[in-house]
Amino acid sequence: MAGTQQFGVIGLAVMGENLALNIERNGFPIAVYNRTWSVTEAFATGRAAGLKVVAARTLEEFVAALERPRRILVMVKAGGAVDAVLEQLGPLLEQGDIVIDGGNSLYKDTERRVQSAAGKPWRFFGMGVSGGEEGALWGPSLMPGGDREAYERLRPILEAISAKTDSGPCVTYCGRGSAGHFVKMVHNGIEYGDMQLIAEAYDLLRHVGGIDDGAEMERIFREWNAGELQSFLIEITIGIVSHPDRLAGRGLLVDAILDSAGQKGTGKWTTIAAMEFGVPIPTITAAVDARLISSLKQERVRASGQLDGPKPSALPADRRAQFVDDVRNALYASKICSYAQGLALLAAASREHDYGIDVGEVARIWKGGCIIRAVFLDTITKAFRRHPGLENLLLDAEFGRAVADRQTAWRRVVETATQHGIAVPAFAASLAYYDAYRRARGPAYIIQAQRDFFGAHTFQRIDRDGTFHENWGEK
Amino acid sequence: MAGTQQFGVIGLAVMGENLALNIERNGFPIAVYNRTWSVTEAFATGRAAGLKVVAARTLEEFVAALERPRRILVMVKAGGAVDAVLEQLGPLLEQGDIVIDGGNSLYKDTERRVQSAAGKPWRFFGMGVSGGEEGALWGPSLMPGGDREAYERLRPILEAISAKTDSGPCVTYCGRGSAGHFVKMVHNGIEYGDMQLIAEAYDLLRHVGGIDDGAEMERIFREWNAGELQSFLIEITIGIVSHPDRLAGRGLLVDAILDSAGQKGTGKWTTIAAMEFGVPIPTITAAVDARLISSLKQERVRASGQLDGPKPSALPADRRAQFVDDVRNALYASKICSYAQGLALLAAASREHDYGIDVGEVARIWKGGCIIRAVFLDTITKAFRRHPGLENLLLDAEFGRAVADRQTAWRRVVETATQHGIAVPAFAASLAYYDAYRRARGPAYIIQAQRDFFGAHTFQRIDRDGTFHENWGEK
Repeated sequence: MAGTQQFGVIGLAVMGENLALNIERNGFPIAVYNRTWSVTEAFATGRAAGLKVVAARTLEEFVAALERPRRILVMVKAGGAVDAVLEQLGPLLEQGDIVIDGGNSLYKDTERRVQSAAGKPWRFFGMGVSGGEEGALWGPSLMPGGDREAYERLRPILEAISAKTDSGPCVTYCGRGSAGHFVKMVHNGIEYGDMQLIAEAYDLLRHVGGIDDGAEMERIFREWNAGELQSFLIEITIGIVSHPDRLAGRGLLVDAILDSAGQKGTGKWTTIAAMEFGVPIPTITAAVDARLISSLKQERVRASGQLDGPKPSALPADRRAQFVDDVRNALYASKICSYAQGLALLAAASREHDYGIDVGEVARIWKGGCIIRAVFLDTITKAFRRHPGLENLLLDAEFGRAVADRQTAWRRVVETATQHGIAVPAFAASLAYYDAYRRARGPAYIIQAQRDFFGAHTFQRIDRDGTFHENWGEK
Repeated sequence: MAGTQQFGVIGLAVMGENLALNIERNGFPIAVYNRTWSVTEAFATGRAAGLKVVAARTLEEFVAALERPRRILVMVKAGGAVDAVLEQLGPLLEQGDIVIDGGNSLYKDTERRVQSAAGKPWRFFGMGVSGGEEGALWGPSLMPGGDREAYERLRPILEAISAKTDSGPCVTYCGRGSAGHFVKMVHNGIEYGDMQLIAEAYDLLRHVGGIDDGAEMERIFREWNAGELQSFLIEITIGIVSHPDRLAGRGLLVDAILDSAGQKGTGKWTTIAAMEFGVPIPTITAAVDARLISSLKQERVRASGQLDGPKPSALPADRRAQFVDDVRNALYASKICSYAQGLALLAAASREHDYGIDVGEVARIWKGGCIIRAVFLDTITKAFRRHPGLENLLLDAEFGRAVADRQTAWRRVVETATQHGIAVPAFAASLAYYDAYRRARGPAYIIQAQRDFFGAHTFQRIDRDGTFHENWGEK
């Protein structure tokens, strides 16, 4: 038995609701189901009133309302809830039905679910969704991965509901298996890097650059947003840095916010994946670590009374304009390094898991709808179109030059921060990455010698083939 | 049926052989077994000839040769080989027998094996062994964890064979479950940090300090080894930096070694565990990342021709002595931060897994036998004896002062490296850790504001309790 609704959504928390409304608005009648009927009912009689929505009381009703083969989006909490839905839903499905997990699932779980659905008549499909509540309603960036044929059947709907930029809808087939959730994870890791870099820039502007006024700070971020740094995250920072503290009735809201950053785990996942694939992503990891240190609030307060260091002080007035400009350059150069790392991780995972990820296309679909959307992604897409097998963004001539042109300013910023005792872990990690990456011969030969000395791990030579072990004790 | 041999060793690769000989030499007659009889035979008629060793052809013979309850050490490759041995050995074991895995097993595997042996008459026990081949033969550092009663039965043997320092044998009961392998993993993570810090110091001395002569470099490391940096890794570096290239017949061997550092994975494991437990260990992670970047040799060679940067040049002669001294201070301060991170990870894992790790005791057993052995560990033990619940080594007055006293030199080194375009990721990550940790209020409030802006993740305020969300779009 099958119905006429063209798309189904299971799970009516805010993301599920908004995606359902987005799909319906784009001309696809929907069926919805939530474990708790009152939630479904509230939606049906509230935001969905008068729309082409069938509200199902049971999964059986839900499945029966959908045209075949069915297209079903599951928007429940990542983890056990997804498995629970699949277990209940699976027996009701038929040949060719597609179940999409649109939650923030760990790619390894998606891989397992794809495998376990492989023998079944229906297809399991993983899709990253970015853009928050607003994006879900008006146009998210969608990162679908899995069975290619299944994607073609989903494509008209996904293209319709996704964000649009001058390079098309923000959706593409990311690749096989768990590629979609892997791409979404790396997106989030890059987002951690961007946010940390902005926080470091703000911190420097304020405590070294002497910008102690919200309006002046707003002006700087507004100016930055007009150039190469133009991005959603800089744009919202414009509004944040000057936002009044309405509750207290005076001052800036940022000054009342506790300096302990939360995290939901996708940044940590990215670092873990990078370790597993053996890809260095030091800027992103520094961002994750910075959030972890920020959460040690009580320890930091105690440490501040015990551990000496320079007290940050504002630069003389005549040096401030240059410093602000230096920080902008340092931010852009660091950002390039962070993206270079994240995209190298994507490429490595694609090789190892045979995902078939087109890195340039991924940059293209991040141009709109998602948290890291930015004009700069266009340049990345172009770089990968020029060199489809580009190993590292820094090896693209345009990006290489962009960083090289800014390095003097970048070095000045890291030096100044170091002198002033202001931690800039992500700026510094990016610069160290750049300097290590551009070095034909680094000091790792010392490490190889040590490993051979204490563990007979052997080493290679630069002047002849083979594997060597030295009796270091004898000269 | 039971025999008279007091201890059994399964697996006769070099570590197994050497531990077996160490145990026998200390007065415990042994039985040995290896999957391939010819290996066992070669050992019995070779290095073990004339010793109190029973060489068993089968596991049944091996088990029968041991006094009851049995004490058996398994020294096979970490991973599936351990499970294979347990599967074959398990059915032959009896009440009270103890099986020790002395390999470099991932602590999660050990946890699983402990659980799976819980319903059996015998006990599974995980033990980290450090010290390489020489250590195994003459006195390793041993990190046993698991059942406390089982430990008491192993104790006389473990204390006899372990390295000895002025604070006793380098073995202690590390804690419950997988505590032993967890401690060993963190030991290795710290080892990665130490090695990277030494490599960075060497690199700076050579390319900025102008020390281009092996004998002069040897003199510096020898001098360093006479002070607070005294350690096995500095000691072997003395011999490494001046070691002649005997194969080429001229020059230094370090100059012929390929600058791509290998790794066996325990550093990555440490970073992954740190992410899972939410503990920042940026110095150790920077060391792992540095090895990963070093392994991108071909990319680095290409990048070196494309990416501009300062060419490192030696400081003027009159500034060199000061610089060498600064590097020594930077190395020690960075090392303290690295240990602070690793030990905080141990403490966090102990809390979460209920290991019951005594961090001061762990530092004590690392004083001898293992790769990171150093006088400095004594000071760590004392710090944890003074404050058993010490959250972070930097909060100990003595270590806090040691770092604070060196920070001016440390900052100069990071600044100089930055100017010269020499990557010092571990020095810089340590300094950023110090500066972030000693800051009562950091810039993470910007990140919290951003998260609340785009994802309604809410924030806390510093001036009142509760959870807040702001409508950032309205002023």
